[in-house]
Amino acid sequence: MKDRVLIGDLKDHVGKDVIIGAWVDVRRDQGKMVFFNFRDRSGVVQGVVLPNSGAMEVAHGLRSEYVVSVQGTVNQRPEKNVNSAVQNGDIELEIKKIEILNAAHEIPFEKDADINLDTRFDHRPFTLKSARDQDIFKVQATITRAYRDSLARQGFLDFQAPALVGEDAEGGSAVFKVHYFYDQTAYLATSPQLYKQIMVGSFERAFTIAKIFRAEKSATTRHLSELTQMDFEMGFINDEFDVMAVLETVVKDTVAATVAEHQGVFDRMKVSAPLVPAEFPRLTLAEALAIVGGSGDDMEPEHERAICEWSKKEKGSDFVFITKFPTKARAFYTMSDTEPGLSRGFDLLFRGLEINSGAQRIHDYQTLVDRIKDRKLDPNKFSFYLQAFQYGIPPHGGCSTGLERLTARMLELQNVKEASAFPRDMNRIDTLLRRDED
Amino acid sequence: MKDRVLIGDLKDHVGKDVIIGAWVDVRRDQGKMVFFNFRDRSGVVQGVVLPNSGAMEVAHGLRSEYVVSVQGTVNQRPEKNVNSAVQNGDIELEIKKIEILNAAHEIPFEKDADINLDTRFDHRPFTLKSARDQDIFKVQATITRAYRDSLARQGFLDFQAPALVGEDAEGGSAVFKVHYFYDQTAYLATSPQLYKQIMVGSFERAFTIAKIFRAEKSATTRHLSELTQMDFEMGFINDEFDVMAVLETVVKDTVAATVAEHQGVFDRMKVSAPLVPAEFPRLTLAEALAIVGGSGDDMEPEHERAICEWSKKEKGSDFVFITKFPTKARAFYTMSDTEPGLSRGFDLLFRGLEINSGAQRIHDYQTLVDRIKDRKLDPNKFSFYLQAFQYGIPPHGGCSTGLERLTARMLELQNVKEASAFPRDMNRIDTLLRRDED
Repeated sequence: MKDRVLIGDLKDHVGKDVIIGAWVDVRRDQGKMVFFNFRDRSGVVQGVVLPNSGAMEVAHGLRSEYVVSVQGTVNQRPEKNVNSAVQNGDIELEIKKIEILNAAHEIPFEKDADINLDTRFDHRPFTLKSARDQDIFKVQATITRAYRDSLARQGFLDFQAPALVGEDAEGGSAVFKVHYFYDQTAYLATSPQLYKQIMVGSFERAFTIAKIFRAEKSATTRHLSELTQMDFEMGFINDEFDVMAVLETVVKDTVAATVAEHQGVFDRMKVSAPLVPAEFPRLTLAEALAIVGGSGDDMEPEHERAICEWSKKEKGSDFVFITKFPTKARAFYTMSDTEPGLSRGFDLLFRGLEINSGAQRIHDYQTLVDRIKDRKLDPNKFSFYLQAFQYGIPPHGGCSTGLERLTARMLELQNVKEASAFPRDMNRIDTLLRRDED
Repeated sequence: MKDRVLIGDLKDHVGKDVIIGAWVDVRRDQGKMVFFNFRDRSGVVQGVVLPNSGAMEVAHGLRSEYVVSVQGTVNQRPEKNVNSAVQNGDIELEIKKIEILNAAHEIPFEKDADINLDTRFDHRPFTLKSARDQDIFKVQATITRAYRDSLARQGFLDFQAPALVGEDAEGGSAVFKVHYFYDQTAYLATSPQLYKQIMVGSFERAFTIAKIFRAEKSATTRHLSELTQMDFEMGFINDEFDVMAVLETVVKDTVAATVAEHQGVFDRMKVSAPLVPAEFPRLTLAEALAIVGGSGDDMEPEHERAICEWSKKEKGSDFVFITKFPTKARAFYTMSDTEPGLSRGFDLLFRGLEINSGAQRIHDYQTLVDRIKDRKLDPNKFSFYLQAFQYGIPPHGGCSTGLERLTARMLELQNVKEASAFPRDMNRIDTLLRRDED
């Protein structure tokens, strides 16, 4: 739009005539005067159509979400009308002219109404306008940017991991099948794992933010069918603690950027900024289970919540590392620990939820082939991947952070689906596919 | 690795003992002395095992791509041995001790050998170590970073577009089908188009770097089955030229960052940096076809090459915009021009190839519904998307750049597949699926 001034810049134009391009956020029609809140990507401002304004007729016909071009004068508000708690609370736009750029139908409900999740997703193109969703996805964009920047600073190369894979190599049932050329079957990747290990063989340090796909029939608050993984992998490590050190830096950088840019979001959502101690607490699985009174080869969701409560109370940390999981509970490529039965795998928990899982990996070719066989998998199906181990791969490890999980815990959203702009699950791709009968 | 010094930092350690972690790039065994080139993510350095060194026995047993930890002294080379044309050409590592971190099998061929594309892809985990592939994917990482940074600076929000979609809404045959839950069919996205338009309705300016999937049975040098699209979409535009202005800034920023960081790559590949004029030339399709002696509703590949030759010669530009394509030749959501039959769609060509396609889009709900019907498509299949047009979307437009195409033309690679770390086409997912019988 020609000569458009962003709402966020209006404070620099007091006393001047300007043109804004905006949505009608709210209209309050008092008959002789009409008040508006206008919204653009930079913020909101109040506008008023005075009785003598030529814009009055158009103003009466506007509804929420109409898209308009507004010409007017930026006035300082009188002292008694100043509202210092909101953006542009000390100015007001005196409206001279309104042009409708696009009309809007009557909205289905107030965009900031407290509605259930299915209704919110059914109306996603509308509900993404809500203050809550605006906040969530602005925070998410900061998280991905900060995550990338931190890894790039630490010498990691950004690469594009494939989503289509040729083999369901791990033989899991939770893999989506794709009808490929010539009636062949391809699969959707459940992880960029094998590819980032290959990248370590050539680039030493690599990361990717990649889509992954999970076909588990799961309708919990922690699962999506399509999700975004932030993965990295690094060579020349001594053990898994080198990976954890890089991850800790990345997470701290990400939290710091989010808090620096979005304190307003934490305030609006009434959520505290994450508690970040000088060093994240580290517990072995055995230690953690002893504290929460559990047992077994992994942590149950209630154990994850309990150990995070403990970490917050005892260590002043919303984050806690759990190490030394049993080898049998981890993926085939996980390196064993010196202590029999245990592995070099770890999880990072954040506010009650596992947001990251990682490990030192096996780097010796024969050890890896033997492990594949031990797991009753077919080494031939891994022939492409195994080349990385034939032609020189350093000792290495890495980890994977779920973007939606990290976003959800950052803002204490109850359901991870809220942290996906266009969530997919067993019952929904944009619209509901079917009613859940389970 | 403890106390490891990166090879790129060795020049700051002359006269000192250091430990490096590296691959054996080349070994030249002269019997009494053994010379090595070592490689890590930061570069290469020459090392020498002198006759009295305790490392001699290990040195004799090493091969290319062994991964080693090397302890030695950084020596200044005598003046006559200085090679100023290479990194670390004025120093040499006098080797005291070598520890093998991981052995390598005999390599299948020299990693920088000039081999055919299929062989290169068959051995991808090995050939990604070649100087050429190292260069390509470092350049590609710079491209995505610069593209993102430029758009973020211009007020665009990074979002995650979905790869799984519920409808094959445009009814194209070139769509991959996915076996979804409960025997339902889902599809792989051929574009993030509809989702970025939805994002404009709420965020005004949005971008995504997203995987898209094309099931065309095409084995040309310009096609991949899975590719990476860099898309953006923006509201409150006057016409398609506003979109082209943002794109031009993004492309200039991207070229500038690539040239600034990778002059060495252009030198090694014997490729010129792109010619970037003050303003990209703009031609209507009719003008362009008149120049190259063509006709029709679109440009054929030979027309694209010819008009780029013209642009380079006459305008000093490796880039050229083509505008005013016929509406019938463009996607259903493309806005018509005031001139009957023509649209507000455009392409950006770079060194003979279309790397970007964009347009102003239809923003009026009823116009869009009518267009969908005109194209014999079913508006009910677009009900989710159409909500964006019911609840207030500004006049908008956007465009889409193919990452692999941009990378390929930046470095004048003959085949776009070379710009994909893990290329997928009708015959290959990592390994060859079948021999092409066509």
